[in-house]
Amino acid sequence: MRASFILGSCLSGIIAAVAIAALGWNRAAALENTVHVEQVVDPGGNLRVPADYRSTYQFLGSWAVAADDGQGSKELHIVYASPGTVEAYRRTGEFADGAVLVKEVFKTSTGEMTTGNVSRAGTLKGWFVMVRDANGRHQGEKLWGDGWGWSWFDAAEPTKTTSTNYKADCRSCHVPAQMTGWIYIDGYPSLKK
Amino acid sequence: MRASFILGSCLSGIIAAVAIAALGWNRAAALENTVHVEQVVDPGGNLRVPADYRSTYQFLGSWAVAADDGQGSKELHIVYASPGTVEAYRRTGEFADGAVLVKEVFKTSTGEMTTGNVSRAGTLKGWFVMVRDANGRHQGEKLWGDGWGWSWFDAAEPTKTTSTNYKADCRSCHVPAQMTGWIYIDGYPSLKK
Repeated sequence: MRASFILGSCLSGIIAAVAIAALGWNRAAALENTVHVEQVVDPGGNLRVPADYRSTYQFLGSWAVAADDGQGSKELHIVYASPGTVEAYRRTGEFADGAVLVKEVFKTSTGEMTTGNVSRAGTLKGWFVMVRDANGRHQGEKLWGDGWGWSWFDAAEPTKTTSTNYKADCRSCHVPAQMTGWIYIDGYPSLKK
Repeated sequence: MRASFILGSCLSGIIAAVAIAALGWNRAAALENTVHVEQVVDPGGNLRVPADYRSTYQFLGSWAVAADDGQGSKELHIVYASPGTVEAYRRTGEFADGAVLVKEVFKTSTGEMTTGNVSRAGTLKGWFVMVRDANGRHQGEKLWGDGWGWSWFDAAEPTKTTSTNYKADCRSCHVPAQMTGWIYIDGYPSLKK
């Protein structure tokens, strides 16, 4: 833990405490999310992968995609949420405006271990990033809709998406989760009360 | 983010900053780890599952254990580390004294999804907890040795281990990882520089 980080955290803590006192819980939480959104969405509405999500975001869940042939998994997906997302969801049953989800997609490395045939994260293929837009402020933009911003990033380009239209590139895979805000919440144990 | 938590974080930050100034980096990091150890190890050397690891620990990695028959995975293992563990490892190449690792072991729920045959965390079977004991302060105790405290906990009993002897109950599965401090570090991308 670096001293600058500690002092930064302390200052953030004071600001957040003052914000809670002045604005009340919900608006202070919204203020916290605004900070995360600014790290992920540029003024033009373009998303990027947040630089420090592994150390600052919360782990949400993992998915193992089975190999097409034989034993094991061909992909592991690891999903993180911006700080406060889990707590807000457990309180309200919804993802708060500005919540950011990051899904790492790994090719696996699979082999025999003492517990059996086991797959672990291998080469990173890229990331899916979603940003909650509960208020429709980006309505009409091609990578925003249904309450979220959506983008895929190849591993080599975390700041420039290859997605051009969320309906074709992203949403189709999420249709079965439409009733739970387009997110497969069953894979995320920490969201359960 | 609760106000008490924020103020607590702030106070911790000030204490940590003063500690770094007074003690230097390594001893301050050791002090931080002492706090985590006290939440996991009682004065008799007995381990427990830390109460708040999902919200305060860092995610380290996932393992998918293949089903014995057919497609998919029968277990998902999710590994967390106490705060500061990853940063210290990246700096020194070792787990610092007092580092705590928690591995959740889930039975999976497996089904067809839009990305294929996918397994996700289902019922929690229990946890493995390991605590780094670099200085051998628990030498001779039956659940401590080879630089770690080791214990398994069934899901219903996070405060009382069923392990009685780490050599028989725990270490045997970690023998192939002996050269990397008994930990399968290849599954943990964030430890790599």
